[in-house]
Amino acid sequence: MVQTHEKTATSPVNIAVIKYWGKRDTELILPSNSSISITFSKEHLQSKTTIRASPLFEKTRLWLNGIEEINVINNKRLQNCFRETKLLRKEYEDKLSKEIGIDNVIPLSTYHLHICSVNNFPTAAGLASSASGFACLVYTLSQLYELPVSATELSKIARQGSGSACRSLFGGFVSWQMGSKQDGSDSQALQIASSDHWPELEVLICIISDAKKGTSSTEGMQSTVKTSTLLQHRINNVVPERMKLMTNSILRKDFNKFAELTMKDSNQFHACCLDTFPPIFYLNDTSRAIISVITEYNDKSGEYKAAYTFDAGPNAVIYALKRNIPEIINLISKYFPPNQDNQTFFSDPSKLFSDKKKLGKLPLPANFNENIIPVFPNDSVKQILHTCVGNGPRVKKDESLLNAAGFPKTLK
Amino acid sequence: MVQTHEKTATSPVNIAVIKYWGKRDTELILPSNSSISITFSKEHLQSKTTIRASPLFEKTRLWLNGIEEINVINNKRLQNCFRETKLLRKEYEDKLSKEIGIDNVIPLSTYHLHICSVNNFPTAAGLASSASGFACLVYTLSQLYELPVSATELSKIARQGSGSACRSLFGGFVSWQMGSKQDGSDSQALQIASSDHWPELEVLICIISDAKKGTSSTEGMQSTVKTSTLLQHRINNVVPERMKLMTNSILRKDFNKFAELTMKDSNQFHACCLDTFPPIFYLNDTSRAIISVITEYNDKSGEYKAAYTFDAGPNAVIYALKRNIPEIINLISKYFPPNQDNQTFFSDPSKLFSDKKKLGKLPLPANFNENIIPVFPNDSVKQILHTCVGNGPRVKKDESLLNAAGFPKTLK
Repeated sequence: MVQTHEKTATSPVNIAVIKYWGKRDTELILPSNSSISITFSKEHLQSKTTIRASPLFEKTRLWLNGIEEINVINNKRLQNCFRETKLLRKEYEDKLSKEIGIDNVIPLSTYHLHICSVNNFPTAAGLASSASGFACLVYTLSQLYELPVSATELSKIARQGSGSACRSLFGGFVSWQMGSKQDGSDSQALQIASSDHWPELEVLICIISDAKKGTSSTEGMQSTVKTSTLLQHRINNVVPERMKLMTNSILRKDFNKFAELTMKDSNQFHACCLDTFPPIFYLNDTSRAIISVITEYNDKSGEYKAAYTFDAGPNAVIYALKRNIPEIINLISKYFPPNQDNQTFFSDPSKLFSDKKKLGKLPLPANFNENIIPVFPNDSVKQILHTCVGNGPRVKKDESLLNAAGFPKTLK
Repeated sequence: MVQTHEKTATSPVNIAVIKYWGKRDTELILPSNSSISITFSKEHLQSKTTIRASPLFEKTRLWLNGIEEINVINNKRLQNCFRETKLLRKEYEDKLSKEIGIDNVIPLSTYHLHICSVNNFPTAAGLASSASGFACLVYTLSQLYELPVSATELSKIARQGSGSACRSLFGGFVSWQMGSKQDGSDSQALQIASSDHWPELEVLICIISDAKKGTSSTEGMQSTVKTSTLLQHRINNVVPERMKLMTNSILRKDFNKFAELTMKDSNQFHACCLDTFPPIFYLNDTSRAIISVITEYNDKSGEYKAAYTFDAGPNAVIYALKRNIPEIINLISKYFPPNQDNQTFFSDPSKLFSDKKKLGKLPLPANFNENIIPVFPNDSVKQILHTCVGNGPRVKKDESLLNAAGFPKTLK
């Protein structure tokens, strides 16, 4: 009987607070500027991947959320990740057998793989599923192959699958150093602070309905690189200083500074999208209205109590300190009410609102201008996810997404 | 009996194709960059102003669209225009009496004024009414005072009322040279080409419904100056080159180049608004959708057939050559249908659509992706105005907005 070589692991989503937009090398996925992100708890948002290697498999196969991706072999970015991890495995096998003299080293680097990966959130929601997915692929492979390498080394491989995936190799607060070498060997993720560094910092993700499919970030960013006359100025003259200031605000847990930088950098990223030709829009009227509500809230609070950031889609990610979260949920719920019968509108593991009927009905903050925006149609914000800063990838012992024959347990 | 000293004149609206955003001197209204605009026909959009000077008037009074503006004396920008024109009048009176030796020079510079001004379009529509209004005020005063000065000299005075008003002193294609002198004496408008230079160029103005009152341009631009880290780059490194290219594209009647520059500069202006902190939004979902439709239309046409530009509001101004206007009106009408009983949706002096029921029902351009955007709710675009390039201010003989007693004929 053939021994089963298999590992299962989970990886988190990350959302940038200093945005990555533009590649200086599209093959190696080398960014035009450094970036900083925060890794979210896997409780709400994670990718889980099982990878099995077997000499009996006739080819490498991939199932995403229960559906087989037939053209996997042709996907260059996936191939990058396979190639790099197999190369490290091969070196490791050679080292074990030749240098250390171990017999019977299992030649996993030569086996085909069956890969099954699922997200616990809808891919279409635009929540950086490629980041968690590629991070999970590379991390799970590294565990399967027992690679003796650091998370930072792995981040360079995950980067070649999806740029921002490199940041999901770490929990907590993470920077992606753009590097300067042509081969990309110094373009890697580093942890600024771990997930327990700033426990007061929490996150609200507002999932927003949108009629229009946005431009993919891969296409969009290179269009910006080619046509925007503002992006290079951002890259050369704005981001380097913000990287320092953001790192310091995180290390000092200075929410006021953190919030200002986060909002300004989100705005500037979307400004560069608008300066692209033809222009790229990710924010819609609901996104704009959330910005107006947060701006009024901060203004009347006399300090920054909430910081919005938007990626390549209309969803709002709001960072806030724990004590201000209920007030913000109430504000969002007032202006963007759920459907009457929507029980899933607010995902509330922290049991902040025992009576959900009170959502949006509590008093507004002092001096808040109630007419700052009109109340939006029901379901403009489809869901509010309440989450927190979380850990990096983890192995899941005794879990598997594959059955004995090496196929997904739940095929679609 | 006291002789009546009165003049009536009309002035046009102008819309910039290289945008003015930011002042280097807010008192003198000196811009941070030069700009270029097109003056529209007064048939659809004009300000009309009657000004009477009389020794019997006890104070200077102003009626705008039938309503008296009581605090006129305190409005610094209006006072700038009065002061500067009266100064020129006084010099002229002195010259007539002292140098040329004319007796009985009428001391108009010492008389109070009754001013009545009306727009033939709603002020709230966000169609640069302050530009046509201040241009009309200054031009009418210059005629009343019989000032021996050029339109460019007058443009420096109108500029001190409302920056972009200086461009409405000319018809056709107009540049506002930012100048470099501290006293503003070289910050003035010049005509690039007259209104009959490019008769094929026409204009569609799409009036767009918006729930939210936008930031005023006066406040907005200084907020951008203070907080955007991209605006200075635009001012120093982008606009100067675009001024040259746009001037050339107009002189050569090169619609393709004109369109590209117009759209890019509109996008960049709104990008700088978005990079302001807190961000300023003028485009809404309808504006964005119009951009998508025009982008698809140009894309499938293999050339630029339409050029959008947006000022400090959601309304779209579309420049196109005469032969493509029906196709564009049909496209806009398809995706942004009017209310069923709306007879005023499309203002059509050119009688392009004899049967208005066909609006939006004609075939789409070849290969046009019909699903590029969803069809918007009725009345998202409230009106389409079809107009053309027009002349500068004109005196209206035998017309007056004031009755014999010096009060508006139609008081509200």
